[in-house]
Amino acid sequence: MKIPPVKGTRDFYPPDMAVRNFIVDGWKKVSLRNGFEEYDGPIFEYLKMFQIKSGDEIVEQLFSLRDRGGRDLALRPEITPTLARMVNQRINALPRPIKWFSVPRLFRAERPQKGRLREFFQWNIDIIGVDRPLADAEIIFTTVDYLRDAGLTPKDVKVRISSRKLLAAVLKSYGIPEEKLESLYAVLDKKAKLPAETFEEMLAEQVPDKNTLNKILAFMSIDSMPDLEELIKTDSDEFVAYTEVKTVLGTLDAMRVGDFCVYDPSIVRGLAYYTGIVFEVHEAEGELRAICGGGRYDNLLRDFGGPPISATGMGMGDCVLEILLKEKGLLGKSVSHKELDYFVTFAEGHGGGTVYRIAAELRSKGFSTAFSYKTKAGLSKLLKEASGQRARKCIIVGDEFKDKKLAIKDMATGEQGLVDYEAFLSGLGTNTPL
Amino acid sequence: MKIPPVKGTRDFYPPDMAVRNFIVDGWKKVSLRNGFEEYDGPIFEYLKMFQIKSGDEIVEQLFSLRDRGGRDLALRPEITPTLARMVNQRINALPRPIKWFSVPRLFRAERPQKGRLREFFQWNIDIIGVDRPLADAEIIFTTVDYLRDAGLTPKDVKVRISSRKLLAAVLKSYGIPEEKLESLYAVLDKKAKLPAETFEEMLAEQVPDKNTLNKILAFMSIDSMPDLEELIKTDSDEFVAYTEVKTVLGTLDAMRVGDFCVYDPSIVRGLAYYTGIVFEVHEAEGELRAICGGGRYDNLLRDFGGPPISATGMGMGDCVLEILLKEKGLLGKSVSHKELDYFVTFAEGHGGGTVYRIAAELRSKGFSTAFSYKTKAGLSKLLKEASGQRARKCIIVGDEFKDKKLAIKDMATGEQGLVDYEAFLSGLGTNTPL
Repeated sequence: MKIPPVKGTRDFYPPDMAVRNFIVDGWKKVSLRNGFEEYDGPIFEYLKMFQIKSGDEIVEQLFSLRDRGGRDLALRPEITPTLARMVNQRINALPRPIKWFSVPRLFRAERPQKGRLREFFQWNIDIIGVDRPLADAEIIFTTVDYLRDAGLTPKDVKVRISSRKLLAAVLKSYGIPEEKLESLYAVLDKKAKLPAETFEEMLAEQVPDKNTLNKILAFMSIDSMPDLEELIKTDSDEFVAYTEVKTVLGTLDAMRVGDFCVYDPSIVRGLAYYTGIVFEVHEAEGELRAICGGGRYDNLLRDFGGPPISATGMGMGDCVLEILLKEKGLLGKSVSHKELDYFVTFAEGHGGGTVYRIAAELRSKGFSTAFSYKTKAGLSKLLKEASGQRARKCIIVGDEFKDKKLAIKDMATGEQGLVDYEAFLSGLGTNTPL
Repeated sequence: MKIPPVKGTRDFYPPDMAVRNFIVDGWKKVSLRNGFEEYDGPIFEYLKMFQIKSGDEIVEQLFSLRDRGGRDLALRPEITPTLARMVNQRINALPRPIKWFSVPRLFRAERPQKGRLREFFQWNIDIIGVDRPLADAEIIFTTVDYLRDAGLTPKDVKVRISSRKLLAAVLKSYGIPEEKLESLYAVLDKKAKLPAETFEEMLAEQVPDKNTLNKILAFMSIDSMPDLEELIKTDSDEFVAYTEVKTVLGTLDAMRVGDFCVYDPSIVRGLAYYTGIVFEVHEAEGELRAICGGGRYDNLLRDFGGPPISATGMGMGDCVLEILLKEKGLLGKSVSHKELDYFVTFAEGHGGGTVYRIAAELRSKGFSTAFSYKTKAGLSKLLKEASGQRARKCIIVGDEFKDKKLAIKDMATGEQGLVDYEAFLSGLGTNTPL
């Protein structure tokens, strides 16, 4: 009986798994060196937990299930609600600031599209308990630190930075009432994704006054900090938010990643919960979805029943990133190649226990080692098998073994030499192949 | 609004995550050095896929869900069905033998108990395409290679090895018909878990003939290979199976792990699908559930619509293992401690951009580095923060910085010295903290 995999999921055969590990290991390495500690939560939570942050619409996009007690659960579509739950649970015991990262497996019950699958991995970094823009800058630096480590340059990707707080202050100064902001964000978030005309039509529906509409359009098309500065009065509400953006960009300059970063007011982020700095990373040129996004969300812990503690973070999925890395030639063959330190072979009339003992000792000393399962194979066939498995060295148990000696063949150079059996085994204390 | 986690799931706070990583990294390291390649499949599959191997009863223990197309899916309770599906899908393209490992996250809709949770991780290693007992021995060696690497000795754990094929041949020689074997296995599997009397009563229900019953009981209590050898006639069906057991034990001896291994006919394994060598690892003394189990399953690929290719494998969950490692003191404090290479601090009147630049450069060079978010803190407070975060070295940006010099303090010894700023940064090419 043959059963297919579920659409929108992935089978990770060893070469695919190697790519996944390459991406995930890169995320982990960069998180650790930036001082983040790893956490994780369960794959499923109570369904209602995901409604707190994202409302009822999210339920449509959830894989929901029921446990045997009839409770409604859902596979996590994001890990931030779990983060908020976990932090709130131990809010008094956890030393602050909390700098945590995670690489959760996430789920979305949507129709699969390019770069958007029903099951994926997402790198998350968050700093909780620091309200200074320094924390936002550090989140962005860590993001760039990874992208740069993966081989991407400012010519490949750009961090587009903006501020929800600034946008709110500007919109209010144009006479937009507080209660209209959220629906306006949803429209403004579409600026880069829609043709200019369609965008303006949608915006006009929300902002009927032609003069206000033009002011918003002008603000949304500012593309430099000096132009922004001209617009902001020093005694206005906007000034605080503007100063935050300037501090973030200045800190990123000091951190020597300023060339990756630009101010871009069209970055709004769809989700309602952002409260300050927001950003997305996009291909400098190209049609791909955002590679990642994030920002400040100062109300989330409180919304989850905790104290009002500020937070800022970033999420980067593996699907778009993998497409980009492939396009840029940054997933070389070496990523998906299995390699062995040793392959243990034998000449005719030898083999058996000695082969297994040598392989076992090499493995226990930390060397990746294999041997053949073939019962009847000449040495040349065994060497071929070794080379098929990309072994760097071959050990040959042959006639010299009567004098307790082994032949070792370097598979790259073809050079071969004899070593003393016992001395070889007892010399394997270090992790450098002999 | 406060929402609790779902019962039987785990929150991995950083110290818990460090333990999980310690276990999973150990599994991965040992798999790779034993020549296994990593694979993974989706978290959910079609529900009916899990019924092929384990029958309808399994549905009771599954977390089932429906996608928007109304298809019945289930969270995977094991990865072997996925392995069979994936291998069958590419059976002609995959070079054999297939030596794969995986560390899937698995799910069981049961009531949580000690060492048995509703969400857990399981190390799986499998060799597909080798029918020689050598492959079974290699699976067992790899298992022991991990346990020994984790610090366990033959005094702590024992691999109990048996053979389904031998048991079947012996039972048939006692006159038990083929069709009764499966229900008998289920009873025999309980020998070690039940009081002798209860076990005998249950067995008597299946085997009413007193003479046959006694013969089975005698066979099941053999505890050495010489005793087994006495029982087996060289021209019998049992002899082939007996020889396999002997070969496996002999190979494990050659591999120098014989002292971990014993023959134990009471190892039957509950699942119907085993066809040859079976084994479990147990505490040498103690009440814990089996740490892991495995064996040969030569019919599974065929049952999943593929060709009849032999296979053997092992699965080890993280829950019982973690309890055992804790009991034996093998999860030292160092496992769950975060450490930093550097903490960048500053004396009064300094700080800002220079601190962030130094931290950024150190991070990009691969050193885990942090700085303080405090705006107003004296140097002694900053040094305290550094020591709280277990930094090995502190960099101090102070008065010497006017001569482009930095102070570096060794946090263990308290020693402090001056280095040239630019020389320090440009000398950070290697991955050894200065």
